[in-house]
Amino acid sequence: MNQNIQQTMLTAIEDELKRQVSRLDQPRTRPFYEMLSYHMGWVGEGAGPKATGKRIRPLLTLLTTSSCLNGVDLREESLEKVNWLHAVCAAASIELIHNFSLVHDDIQDNSDLRRGRKTVWVHWGSPMAINVGDALFVIANQSMLDLVRHYPADIAVRATNILNENCLRLTEGQYLDMSYEERNDLVMNDYWPMVGGKTSSLLSACTQIGAILGYAKEERVEAFRLFGYHLGLAFQVQDDILGIWGNAEVTGKSSASDLVEGKNSLPVLFGLEKNERFAQRWRQGPITEDEVAFVSALLEEEGGKSYAEALSKLETDKALRYLAQANPQGEAGAIILELTNQLLKRKQ
Amino acid sequence: MNQNIQQTMLTAIEDELKRQVSRLDQPRTRPFYEMLSYHMGWVGEGAGPKATGKRIRPLLTLLTTSSCLNGVDLREESLEKVNWLHAVCAAASIELIHNFSLVHDDIQDNSDLRRGRKTVWVHWGSPMAINVGDALFVIANQSMLDLVRHYPADIAVRATNILNENCLRLTEGQYLDMSYEERNDLVMNDYWPMVGGKTSSLLSACTQIGAILGYAKEERVEAFRLFGYHLGLAFQVQDDILGIWGNAEVTGKSSASDLVEGKNSLPVLFGLEKNERFAQRWRQGPITEDEVAFVSALLEEEGGKSYAEALSKLETDKALRYLAQANPQGEAGAIILELTNQLLKRKQ
Repeated sequence: MNQNIQQTMLTAIEDELKRQVSRLDQPRTRPFYEMLSYHMGWVGEGAGPKATGKRIRPLLTLLTTSSCLNGVDLREESLEKVNWLHAVCAAASIELIHNFSLVHDDIQDNSDLRRGRKTVWVHWGSPMAINVGDALFVIANQSMLDLVRHYPADIAVRATNILNENCLRLTEGQYLDMSYEERNDLVMNDYWPMVGGKTSSLLSACTQIGAILGYAKEERVEAFRLFGYHLGLAFQVQDDILGIWGNAEVTGKSSASDLVEGKNSLPVLFGLEKNERFAQRWRQGPITEDEVAFVSALLEEEGGKSYAEALSKLETDKALRYLAQANPQGEAGAIILELTNQLLKRKQ
Repeated sequence: MNQNIQQTMLTAIEDELKRQVSRLDQPRTRPFYEMLSYHMGWVGEGAGPKATGKRIRPLLTLLTTSSCLNGVDLREESLEKVNWLHAVCAAASIELIHNFSLVHDDIQDNSDLRRGRKTVWVHWGSPMAINVGDALFVIANQSMLDLVRHYPADIAVRATNILNENCLRLTEGQYLDMSYEERNDLVMNDYWPMVGGKTSSLLSACTQIGAILGYAKEERVEAFRLFGYHLGLAFQVQDDILGIWGNAEVTGKSSASDLVEGKNSLPVLFGLEKNERFAQRWRQGPITEDEVAFVSALLEEEGGKSYAEALSKLETDKALRYLAQANPQGEAGAIILELTNQLLKRKQ
């Protein structure tokens, strides 16, 4: 049964994403339209479910809306006709923002592969890829404003404002991430604003906007927002741990690749702030594949792993506490909890 | 007197732009904020009026609003408190979109200079410059949504929708422009969709949104929209003519630089469609500085110049006819006409 509503939502999300992106499906701009469709995972080599990604953000948005609507008194006339499907353009909007940021991120990071396929800039060059990202960004805004079809204009304005506030946090996080590459005086306090902007901002937009579109009361909207925010932080810290000590079979990327890539993850910043042997080695220049086992053991010894694990647990607990406070209802509510545990790799 | 309201508007626009961009003025993101401020012409080497550009778009927006408000019956209560200053966030929004597109355009075109100063990507690298453009785009949307401070939410939604529709046209025009670089089968029909997207879309957004914010009736809004659109086309065609046959002293760039740069301007597409001696030479590869005098004379001989001049006149006449239909009132109305004639280098 749970699988059913989740699958129904995922189908509705994919349909809406296609409908939104088809704004560019005109004779003259068809090749441009196809670049966006390629990135979204619909066409070209390797197209299919693996290429689209999991659509976690729009799913979380619709589940939040549904879990709030489940609890309200449907006899109130203004709500009688509302169902989660009315929020699907908002869910699609957030996924489009996520994808806009991936397209630009891949250029900025010089990444060749995304979900196992050539990135847009590798395929069509950076100038075109910049423009593909820009178009996704524009369509994301249009998609959010489509809310006026089923919601009062002031709610559409509020949702679009939240979207853009979090997009600005995204560009700030991106700025911090890029600026850190040139610094060697980083400490742990530098971590949270970057991750807050790059990962948590968009997840908090999902749950905040989802709750607003479920006509939740303000306190509940705030609890949902904080749930999304801390879910993002917990998820990111866990991702950082896996990036150094993860099992390659589970993560799908070579273990310890984060050390080789010089990523300023939480365990690394812990080590830098500690300023002992790990920090000394890190500051001497890139870690080679051969050194990975030694350097990761060093960082673990100095406490980097257990510190990050403690932080991940702290953020997970916060997320779950806010979720309990948000009190999601019905089938959708149960799936949110399930999905959260899954994302944070916890057993029920 | 005319100078006064125009100057008052320009000051209000600059203040609003600064207020909007200051969203990034936080301790951690200050260097990022300064990149945006540099591009906007406020700080860094060469900062000042020359570096900001003329702010034609936001000025046209406010003049349109004012020229509509001048004509309405202020005894109607809902309008009594409205003045052009309430539209300043919309005017700023359009200027921010224009600047977002310039920052990305400079990366895409590999341009080193913008208004006589180093471009953002030359200063801070392409990855940072992509992010600067993205942030300007986000802030543009936030700025437009600030309309809810003085206008009903449905008007803010309508204005933001028009903004984004025209932004999508902008990305389409950009796509066409880039795709044309690889083609040698271009004809005149390929010109208008590109220029419509790259130049006219944003100008039509200025006049359309400006009229809506002046509470103009639908017919008048449409006349203003078409005025802006054809003003953009006329302006672009004229720019194309100057780019080949212009006087370097007047245009500020070396005459005929468009031929050397291989720009697919209207006279060039005319020559390509004609498919005579100019087309033959063009398709053989880049024009050198030495050949410019000969090739431009050839194109003039084949009719490229007089054709473009006729088209420029046609679009200018259309623009002026729609402006007459829009019937702008008062001081602001007079300045719009003045500005139009100035832009189209016509004598009153």
